[in-house]
Amino acid sequence: MGNGELVFPAGVAGVECAHRVPVPPSKPFLETFRTNLKETFFPDDPLRQFKNEKPSRKLIKVLQYLFPILEWAPNYTLNYFKSDLVAGITIASLAIPQGISYAKLANLPPILGLYSSFVPPLVYTILGSSKDVAVGTVAVPSLLLASMLSKEVSATQNPGLYLHLAFTATFFAGAFQASLGLLRLGFIVDFLSHATIVGFMGGAATVVCLQQLKGILNLEHFTTATDLVSVMESVFTQTHKWRWESAVLGCCFLFFLLITRYFSKRKPKFFWISAAAPLTSVILGSVLVFLTHAENHGVQVIGYLKKGLNPPSLTTLVFSPPYMMIALKTGIVTGIIAMAEGIAVGRSFAMFKNYHIDGNKEMIAFGTMNMAGSLTSCYLTTGPFSRSAVNYNAGCKTAMSNMVMALAVMVTLLFLTPLFHYTPLVVLSAIIICAMLGIIDYETAFHLWHVDKIDFFVCFGAYFGVVFGSVEIGLVIAVVVSLLRILLFVARPRTTVLGNIPNSMIYRRMDQYSEAKSVPGVFIVQIDGPIYFANASYLRERISRWISEEEDKIKLNGERSLQYVILDMGAVGSIDTSGISMLKEAKKVVERRGLQLVLANPGSEVMKKLYKSKVLEIIGKEWIFLTVGEAVGACSYLLHTCKPGTMEGVNGVAFANDNAV
Amino acid sequence: MGNGELVFPAGVAGVECAHRVPVPPSKPFLETFRTNLKETFFPDDPLRQFKNEKPSRKLIKVLQYLFPILEWAPNYTLNYFKSDLVAGITIASLAIPQGISYAKLANLPPILGLYSSFVPPLVYTILGSSKDVAVGTVAVPSLLLASMLSKEVSATQNPGLYLHLAFTATFFAGAFQASLGLLRLGFIVDFLSHATIVGFMGGAATVVCLQQLKGILNLEHFTTATDLVSVMESVFTQTHKWRWESAVLGCCFLFFLLITRYFSKRKPKFFWISAAAPLTSVILGSVLVFLTHAENHGVQVIGYLKKGLNPPSLTTLVFSPPYMMIALKTGIVTGIIAMAEGIAVGRSFAMFKNYHIDGNKEMIAFGTMNMAGSLTSCYLTTGPFSRSAVNYNAGCKTAMSNMVMALAVMVTLLFLTPLFHYTPLVVLSAIIICAMLGIIDYETAFHLWHVDKIDFFVCFGAYFGVVFGSVEIGLVIAVVVSLLRILLFVARPRTTVLGNIPNSMIYRRMDQYSEAKSVPGVFIVQIDGPIYFANASYLRERISRWISEEEDKIKLNGERSLQYVILDMGAVGSIDTSGISMLKEAKKVVERRGLQLVLANPGSEVMKKLYKSKVLEIIGKEWIFLTVGEAVGACSYLLHTCKPGTMEGVNGVAFANDNAV
Repeated sequence: MGNGELVFPAGVAGVECAHRVPVPPSKPFLETFRTNLKETFFPDDPLRQFKNEKPSRKLIKVLQYLFPILEWAPNYTLNYFKSDLVAGITIASLAIPQGISYAKLANLPPILGLYSSFVPPLVYTILGSSKDVAVGTVAVPSLLLASMLSKEVSATQNPGLYLHLAFTATFFAGAFQASLGLLRLGFIVDFLSHATIVGFMGGAATVVCLQQLKGILNLEHFTTATDLVSVMESVFTQTHKWRWESAVLGCCFLFFLLITRYFSKRKPKFFWISAAAPLTSVILGSVLVFLTHAENHGVQVIGYLKKGLNPPSLTTLVFSPPYMMIALKTGIVTGIIAMAEGIAVGRSFAMFKNYHIDGNKEMIAFGTMNMAGSLTSCYLTTGPFSRSAVNYNAGCKTAMSNMVMALAVMVTLLFLTPLFHYTPLVVLSAIIICAMLGIIDYETAFHLWHVDKIDFFVCFGAYFGVVFGSVEIGLVIAVVVSLLRILLFVARPRTTVLGNIPNSMIYRRMDQYSEAKSVPGVFIVQIDGPIYFANASYLRERISRWISEEEDKIKLNGERSLQYVILDMGAVGSIDTSGISMLKEAKKVVERRGLQLVLANPGSEVMKKLYKSKVLEIIGKEWIFLTVGEAVGACSYLLHTCKPGTMEGVNGVAFANDNAV
Repeated sequence: MGNGELVFPAGVAGVECAHRVPVPPSKPFLETFRTNLKETFFPDDPLRQFKNEKPSRKLIKVLQYLFPILEWAPNYTLNYFKSDLVAGITIASLAIPQGISYAKLANLPPILGLYSSFVPPLVYTILGSSKDVAVGTVAVPSLLLASMLSKEVSATQNPGLYLHLAFTATFFAGAFQASLGLLRLGFIVDFLSHATIVGFMGGAATVVCLQQLKGILNLEHFTTATDLVSVMESVFTQTHKWRWESAVLGCCFLFFLLITRYFSKRKPKFFWISAAAPLTSVILGSVLVFLTHAENHGVQVIGYLKKGLNPPSLTTLVFSPPYMMIALKTGIVTGIIAMAEGIAVGRSFAMFKNYHIDGNKEMIAFGTMNMAGSLTSCYLTTGPFSRSAVNYNAGCKTAMSNMVMALAVMVTLLFLTPLFHYTPLVVLSAIIICAMLGIIDYETAFHLWHVDKIDFFVCFGAYFGVVFGSVEIGLVIAVVVSLLRILLFVARPRTTVLGNIPNSMIYRRMDQYSEAKSVPGVFIVQIDGPIYFANASYLRERISRWISEEEDKIKLNGERSLQYVILDMGAVGSIDTSGISMLKEAKKVVERRGLQLVLANPGSEVMKKLYKSKVLEIIGKEWIFLTVGEAVGACSYLLHTCKPGTMEGVNGVAFANDNAV
């Protein structure tokens, strides 16, 4: 009895006729390779818009693609400009104090904060495709920069070299970001899951707040380490050096800032109150110090800020060992963190306003902006969430708001820097703390725990890694746990028993659908995932265990003994050679128990590989069905009509193939 | 128009009534955690056999589980013993020359090869659950041991320390294997895919053959590096030192061995010819040298071998820095390689003879055997393929054949060692080369290329990494490529368009089933894989791209415009919070185009998380169907009956939910 002979009369499978599963024609290797490559690196098909356009239009489109400003500038209206002006000035009032604060956080001269809010925004206005991102320095990468560079060079003993390394790191960060974008490797950022970023940012924010204790308590000597333990140690070992004046001042301003933020949160149309609060407190603080001469009573002030625009810094970049390596490492780590935040912010606002931004293009924009910055005395910048949110609330219409901010900062640099001489550092600390408290997103953490435990543990791991270890450790923990989750999913795919939904040809998981009934004599298992080397032997074990458990159950209830095992391959997305040989072995395992293996709804990849590896002949074409329903139909037909002799014959087919190999 | 109100009259979805997809009841966290843990570490449910047994039986079963010998010993018959005797003596005749050869390969005293074929087999007889595995030393781990230890300690300048480190490494290897088994982490071995092992073994075999040029050409000075380049260099830089006598001798014996193997391959019942060939050539070689005194004419011989059984080596183990670390590293790497081979061999023979072996139990057996070995002057052993195959062909019935071999080796150790004094090394080299040529499995490589390109590249990478880099490099390349494949599968899950199979309610991938027809006004996409952080944004992009491509097509053909987008979630095995928010965003993206998002056949995990994250309300319960068929049925019903007003209403529902969040 050959393969082809086992045909089922019409209507067996409960439909007009049992459909056959075809073996797809094999495509040439290069073609499939090209399509896969395209799927992997150009999923968004960026060149699509240039198709069937006439050359002139095409050129324009390409230019617009490269310089998004050409897209919106032509139809830029006065009304747009009004909104952008308001938004730009608002974010400038936030950018100046924040810039100075974060520069301090990175152990860099305060003026760099202002420099970094001048050049990069201008570059972004030309290249950026987001309408809402407001460019500037960010707390976490600033801290990261400090903690990584400090390992090699002390910012206090060798400020010059430290500064040059900071520029170099910024350059490498930019180069790294741009090249990721050019190589279409943007999806690497996706491997930092939302849970990771929440935990990581929360932890980093906590660490940054702890660092501010130095400013608040006005301590000279402070640990360079960032972890909770050593910070607490260095705070409580020098309680005698605490200065109540600055502490009181800091707490007052922190209270003021928190109040304003709370108020603006309650009444969104008063967003500008919290937006203006930092600058207000800077002014208040400065005036206060100026009048009371508190700088002589334990309240540190910024001191002299040089007038004038960014000096060039090309010549200061360090491209020679031994320090180049640390700059490179710092650049890559800080670069990817900063980029992740920027992209996430851009995407989420684009989602709000229903427009689409190309991640890879954004990376190129950020990268160019940072490289340009590193040549003009700026350090790492990106699209920080807080500032962009203010920009969005202030009703910005285009990236023009960045240019407005840049010009406002320019004016400050040219004329107003002396005003910051008396600004007390403690106010900056208060500003940082207030900003950081907004980042610690415990609600999302609860949400994660509620919805997905593993994601919660990823978040948790990142947070604790950062707080008790270091920023890098936290990041590594989170990424490793996330990857382990993926590997575990592949190593242990779920297998579930299917049953029939009453009065239908539908078969569904019995643990999900209580009404689903098992079919006497037939056992149906669904495999939820790819069959790869990592899970092949597990699946083999598991399937045979399913069968023995089922047979025990049947013995207990004295039901009809099993004859057929149907594997629903519908959810098997991919298979490799180990998976193919697993199916071959499963066939043997099942036959050893005197049962018949049946496949339902295998995908084209599975069919192709079964055929190429000749396993198809072993399993038998006639035992592969389009749907579980048809497979069950065929099996129960055989169960009811076939005499033992015929069954022998049917099994005989399979054995014959088996021996043939 | 509220959520519940959108009900479809009976028969809409083409069956009695459109089935609803229930939200599964949420289980307590600890319970799911326990079940997941069990699935991950006890997939084969080893304790199952002890269930519902009375205590006395249970005790016996446990003992039998721990010491498999208790299972087969009681009903061991004389006939069994006869077959095991034959098999045991056959493998002993192979074990003695191979043992000596591989010991040389590991830069260890030849006698260790004999020691290692005495104690470990005895241990395995008691603990091993495979009936066919023949225990002994293996070429690749021997070479690996040599190349790793030589980095720290020279075997020629400091043989004592080198020997002790070899024992220590063996001990660590055993401890590592046993603990992996005890911790049920056996599945780690599964991450070495078949492709990896083929490529790796092939490369290692090539390297081992190259190393034999030293023996064949009788060169004193030879590179310690294993890569092709440096070996070729050190061979051809000293052509003047080549000795034709040993070269000729070596080639003759190699020819003899290859002939016998070819013959036995042709006529399987003469397997014993190739099995006995090594010992024969050793005897011939020794006699030849003894008569011609070739040892004085450039043919190196083994020389004096100490009589007597394994001396204890407990006191020689090195558990103190600086050398302990290298021993530990070597132990772990060699241990996992050796174990992988042993387990694979055991499994495949178990598959032949239709019995089942527990991988984790085998690991414990191998581990104990190696720890015992390291205390009795043995080095790393496992179940080599060549020897086990001979054992199997010789018709072994139980692990007793190992004991027979051990006793035969014991006799050799006690009385026959002097006979090996004149054995020429070149014969050993010939034996190794012959064995290695059998391992280079180019046919499988072709098969891999034919069936699965990526697996081929894994294999290829492993091979070239080993041959041109080092054994470790090859291993790392292969593992990394394999893991990248998994990550890529998750990062870029396939999405395919579904169409209707004529005269049926079945919907299948249109690229696989040419007869499948698309449904006017409805667009169906299937997602083949889990929705995770790694692919969430890709899927969002891809889905919207699918839609725009479809809409372009429709515009061209002037067909009915799209109204519904159905996502077939049947193949989505798992989802995380990023995936959930992806669905939320997809809903928005689809709505922005004025379309309605419909989900078909989501699994219980998806439903649970949709519900817990309140995204279910956004998508709308009434837009989730049990099958694609029913979803299409409902959509086309609405397409044909609903007036625009009603459609508004229908969309209105979704929007209402949307705003509600």
